[in-house]
Amino acid sequence: LEKLNEYLQFIEEELSKLNINGKPSELYEPIKYTLSLGGKRIRPVLTLISCEAFGGSKDQALNAALAIEVFHNFTLLHDDIMDNAPLRRTKETVHVKWNPNIAILSGDAMFVLSQQLLLKSETDSLIKCLILFNKTAIEVCEGQQLDMNFEKQEYVSIPSYINMIGLKTAVLLACSLKIGALIAGSNDEDAQHIYNYGYNLGVAFQLQDDILDVYADPNKFGKQVGGDIISNKKTFLLLKAMELSKLNHYKESELKMWMQAGQEHAKEKVEAVTLLYDFLGVKEIALKEVDKYHHVALTSLDKINLNENQKKVFYDFAHFLMKRDL
Amino acid sequence: LEKLNEYLQFIEEELSKLNINGKPSELYEPIKYTLSLGGKRIRPVLTLISCEAFGGSKDQALNAALAIEVFHNFTLLHDDIMDNAPLRRTKETVHVKWNPNIAILSGDAMFVLSQQLLLKSETDSLIKCLILFNKTAIEVCEGQQLDMNFEKQEYVSIPSYINMIGLKTAVLLACSLKIGALIAGSNDEDAQHIYNYGYNLGVAFQLQDDILDVYADPNKFGKQVGGDIISNKKTFLLLKAMELSKLNHYKESELKMWMQAGQEHAKEKVEAVTLLYDFLGVKEIALKEVDKYHHVALTSLDKINLNENQKKVFYDFAHFLMKRDL
Repeated sequence: LEKLNEYLQFIEEELSKLNINGKPSELYEPIKYTLSLGGKRIRPVLTLISCEAFGGSKDQALNAALAIEVFHNFTLLHDDIMDNAPLRRTKETVHVKWNPNIAILSGDAMFVLSQQLLLKSETDSLIKCLILFNKTAIEVCEGQQLDMNFEKQEYVSIPSYINMIGLKTAVLLACSLKIGALIAGSNDEDAQHIYNYGYNLGVAFQLQDDILDVYADPNKFGKQVGGDIISNKKTFLLLKAMELSKLNHYKESELKMWMQAGQEHAKEKVEAVTLLYDFLGVKEIALKEVDKYHHVALTSLDKINLNENQKKVFYDFAHFLMKRDL
Repeated sequence: LEKLNEYLQFIEEELSKLNINGKPSELYEPIKYTLSLGGKRIRPVLTLISCEAFGGSKDQALNAALAIEVFHNFTLLHDDIMDNAPLRRTKETVHVKWNPNIAILSGDAMFVLSQQLLLKSETDSLIKCLILFNKTAIEVCEGQQLDMNFEKQEYVSIPSYINMIGLKTAVLLACSLKIGALIAGSNDEDAQHIYNYGYNLGVAFQLQDDILDVYADPNKFGKQVGGDIISNKKTFLLLKAMELSKLNHYKESELKMWMQAGQEHAKEKVEAVTLLYDFLGVKEIALKEVDKYHHVALTSLDKINLNENQKKVFYDFAHFLMKRDL
């Protein structure tokens, strides 16, 4: 998968060439800043890979790939206002560095910019791509609203949680792949299969993230292990633990007690809740769930009418995504 | 122009049929609420009128007309957050009735909805319409940012002010007309002429608004006469008065003094500043400016390759718009 790095670099270069120097600068500087913060650029890379796998070229898919990355960064910008997040990729968020009004408006402008980039794609399937892009955009809004709703709810069912991460994260990965396929001229069935591959892989990835937050090797994990536990984030692990502990009144009380613990007990809380998770076996249940979605993703891949060599990049990518240390 | 009312009703009915009942309701209820607040619906009506004048039908242009109205309401929703406005059409604004996060996100979703509506238009010129729509959208963002910048600047030049109202208001009126023409299959030259008509009429209308705020008959004016004076809003009249009073040190000091007056002196302030405007003759200068833009609008209309009967509705509309009591 040395291709990933090559494509990442290509996207990074092309993003920096976007020449976002319009007036007034108060509108455009925050957009330049946001796009310069870096990131894995996984979505646009998937668009390029998909277009090539289906017989197109990466240049053909470039504008669409950039559109998706700009859209993704627009959602991060507005999410950061809503979450009142001070930092994004270790740098000040736009609403802190400038102010919330500028963050709202430059986010809106980024969303327009993403539509304009997609409109620049020269492809017979442009209308199809635009329809998919906007369907995905509204789903991402729904996912973000559900995520905010869940923070205020005492309990969230596992299917609701999976639905939320599907909308907030997986549909855009799926869309990135499908748009690449459509631009290459794939048929509708194959385009749907690669969409399903992306969707299920996205859900698997997000669930794996929940597990890693608790069980990652602290030396290899970029963030603080146990961060989700400290903030009572309603992850798959916590929701499953809440569900299972209902059958054990003692454990249920213990979990509730730790969820009310103050910041000064963060370290003990992480240890205690992790032990509870171990006792209830939620890690194994979560791993099985990851496997389930991973498997559905691969099954979708099997159905695509391309030869194994053409599909290799997708198998490799799924493997690469899922082999993060646990 | 009884057609205006008929079309207004058509738009109102079709907006209410949009069936915005998705989940989660926290995302969709504010959209329904915003679209139910009414308004003059001038933009979508212009799209319908223009499509008919250029030989199309109003049904053909309906989705585009709705797209433009939904987009306009999205900009009002986000502007209201940025302006911290408590009311919109006498009802609570979304960020007050719900909260700012919901207002940001449901605004984003409205913007997506507007793109989706436009994408539903069945026309050969769909891509052209989408390109124009998104170009207009970014210009409206620029206009709003300039407007926010101007609030913090001590002085703004008249050309900068005209540029700002052009971006914030006139381009969307122009876009509404041009999209109607494009859907009807007009040629590019005529589409540009109707755009120019709308742009210049929009600027004339906005300048007239500035005059009306000070000189309207209080019995016929919907708002408080002098509201702009009380809030020191940088209108054409105030900017012109600031410019002209530089030549008269005494009047300059007087204007500056009143601009620092507290709310308790609102009534005297309106009287005194109006007298200053009269003394400096800014009303007449503003009226000439309105005439200038009105005239350019009509000249653009003259150039359109339709017969006088087909263009009558546009002449009537310009007359209707400009005959507001002064």
